[in-house]
Amino acid sequence: MANISKTAQQMPASAIRKLVPFADAAKKEGVKVYHLNLGQPDIKSPKCALDAIRNFNLDHVSYSHSAGLIQLREGLVEKYYKKIGIDIEVSELIVTVAGSESVNLALTITCDPGDEVIVLEPFYTNYNTFAFMNGITLKAIPTDMRAGFQVPPVEEFEKAITDRTKAILLCNPGNPTGTLYSKESMLAIGEIAKKHDLFILSDEVYREFCYTDEPHFSAMNIPGAEQNVILIDSVSKRYNLCGARIGCIVSHNKEVMTAAMKYAQARLCPPVIGQMASIGALDTPDDYFDAVKEEYIKRRDFMIEGLNRIEGVYTPLPMGAFYTIAELPVDDTEKFAKWMLENFRIDNETTMVTPAASFYKTPGKGKNHARIAYVLEVDEMKKALRILEEGLKAYPGRTI
Amino acid sequence: MANISKTAQQMPASAIRKLVPFADAAKKEGVKVYHLNLGQPDIKSPKCALDAIRNFNLDHVSYSHSAGLIQLREGLVEKYYKKIGIDIEVSELIVTVAGSESVNLALTITCDPGDEVIVLEPFYTNYNTFAFMNGITLKAIPTDMRAGFQVPPVEEFEKAITDRTKAILLCNPGNPTGTLYSKESMLAIGEIAKKHDLFILSDEVYREFCYTDEPHFSAMNIPGAEQNVILIDSVSKRYNLCGARIGCIVSHNKEVMTAAMKYAQARLCPPVIGQMASIGALDTPDDYFDAVKEEYIKRRDFMIEGLNRIEGVYTPLPMGAFYTIAELPVDDTEKFAKWMLENFRIDNETTMVTPAASFYKTPGKGKNHARIAYVLEVDEMKKALRILEEGLKAYPGRTI
Repeated sequence: MANISKTAQQMPASAIRKLVPFADAAKKEGVKVYHLNLGQPDIKSPKCALDAIRNFNLDHVSYSHSAGLIQLREGLVEKYYKKIGIDIEVSELIVTVAGSESVNLALTITCDPGDEVIVLEPFYTNYNTFAFMNGITLKAIPTDMRAGFQVPPVEEFEKAITDRTKAILLCNPGNPTGTLYSKESMLAIGEIAKKHDLFILSDEVYREFCYTDEPHFSAMNIPGAEQNVILIDSVSKRYNLCGARIGCIVSHNKEVMTAAMKYAQARLCPPVIGQMASIGALDTPDDYFDAVKEEYIKRRDFMIEGLNRIEGVYTPLPMGAFYTIAELPVDDTEKFAKWMLENFRIDNETTMVTPAASFYKTPGKGKNHARIAYVLEVDEMKKALRILEEGLKAYPGRTI
Repeated sequence: MANISKTAQQMPASAIRKLVPFADAAKKEGVKVYHLNLGQPDIKSPKCALDAIRNFNLDHVSYSHSAGLIQLREGLVEKYYKKIGIDIEVSELIVTVAGSESVNLALTITCDPGDEVIVLEPFYTNYNTFAFMNGITLKAIPTDMRAGFQVPPVEEFEKAITDRTKAILLCNPGNPTGTLYSKESMLAIGEIAKKHDLFILSDEVYREFCYTDEPHFSAMNIPGAEQNVILIDSVSKRYNLCGARIGCIVSHNKEVMTAAMKYAQARLCPPVIGQMASIGALDTPDDYFDAVKEEYIKRRDFMIEGLNRIEGVYTPLPMGAFYTIAELPVDDTEKFAKWMLENFRIDNETTMVTPAASFYKTPGKGKNHARIAYVLEVDEMKKALRILEEGLKAYPGRTI
């Protein structure tokens, strides 16, 4: 019999989606599941984006340029990046199949198999998957939950850097922590990158979801690091068009963009109908994001307060994105999450959380952590939290 | 300065798209370019597919299941594959980001870096790109233009197989040759695969574009090879929704599908609006393909006859897809194609062809071959052919 590759055999399965069959089984029984596990918001997309889909009036759907429709590329440069203070040329941007392709591209362009990339732990679990697929090793620097998962001191980076280190991969604001990095932290990372000739792969897909008064500081604006920074961005996530799968990769580094173009050509083009929706989204009025932020701040405050009120639960206050990492009074959040889906119901409803161990590289870390998304309406979250609280009391692996 | 990876540096640029800047330059001068180089047909998509886009009535675009919307997966199994005699379960299909992702997945699932895959030369140039990205070596078995690029005898496969060979990658009907493989050839390939425990990666994205009376014989129907075959398919290509980027990977082999699912989860989901268009496309009436085939046969006959009438040009009669490989009386088709775009015009119009050397692995082969797509209306092709004929007469590197 023909055998699949060792890489495919050993590739880690998504921990986030591993519990999906149990949720599906519960739903089949007629149980309502509150999804605190998914970054799938219920916020409306801007009307201009939705209209662009509905007004589709071609008689077939052609390939676009491999770098994306020129109208989208120019629009992103002129109508979006210029407005938020990121100054780039059209040739410094390639439209990708969402942030996912952008992460994968940034990794393959900068690293050969055997090379190392530094990440701050906990980190988005698919960084690990993409690294594994490309034979790249992630070196995780731990961060402190009680300090809001902020960037550790420079010495920690210095300790982690070896002669195989090629890049530092950041998510700002962070998935799964919701942590927003300060300008000072970003400048410090810039210094390390310049000193050691490392790339900074800056995943800023949650840039528009920041809940402080300070503006988001993009890695693209670290002085003197123009040749080091590769921006990983999403268009579809920004406008809650997640399924449209449109993102981009941006860099002032010509060698990086030339390489990115070769990869982009191999897969012909990014999804065109999604690109059309994204062109529409470029005309989103400013008050759209104001309203979205207001809504998320309300949800965040409700969720964080609610979580910290539960006995044995702790979570810091996230300043961006729509996630938080919470410590739960359980032996193992994976067991707990599965137990909830299989055994625990109030009025035939249950709550689903994401076990956070897969967001950590250090073995054993994060075993009692869960990632909680605050993407539901307050009334829904209220019910979800009550079920979570009662579930924690009843769970046999409770640790307090 | 931070350096990009060796893989990214050495990755081959797409030969198909290398000439795009010269075409763009000609267009900027106001020159009309007839694109015989691109597989971008002008055929209308089925109304039911276009309506599915226009009738979009959600208020945001969520992620779908990583394997694709269940309605699309079930629809493909029930409404499409069952009808054409390919009998599969829903769990044996995963929706991909077009045929491109499906090729890449099939290669990574079956091969580790250093492994070998057999292809029939000339082959789709991006097979080489995806293989390179994954550190896989393509071993090309030459085929004979004068014999219509048909499958070579078994001995040629036996000679090419080593202990690193993991798969045979086929395109049927073929891009760039338009060759349709007979049932007998497919059964012979099945025997080789079974004997040596190889996978058959069967790219059948042009299945609905066959111009003989015999039905297309899918690798999925090779008896006893159920565990060896991985089907690479496209939905968007079939209905001229190329830019929608929807395809699928299909296999009876559970290990393959489990691995494919892990990769699918890493990139979250395929483009959702394109999936919706594809669900609509499942209701395409049979007479749509009858009309499409009739149109392509007309175009093919016109193009093949027209090419063979030009002095020094030879091309066989393709039985599928919408391409043909033509031998031109020139020193180098890349130089010729570039020269046409830069220097040759009739009434301010020119013709663009794809140099075919990159479809060959054997050095020097295909240097005077071009890939010609017959995707334009007959009137357009007529003008394109006349310009090609005159250009061949005037070209300084003419060999006759």
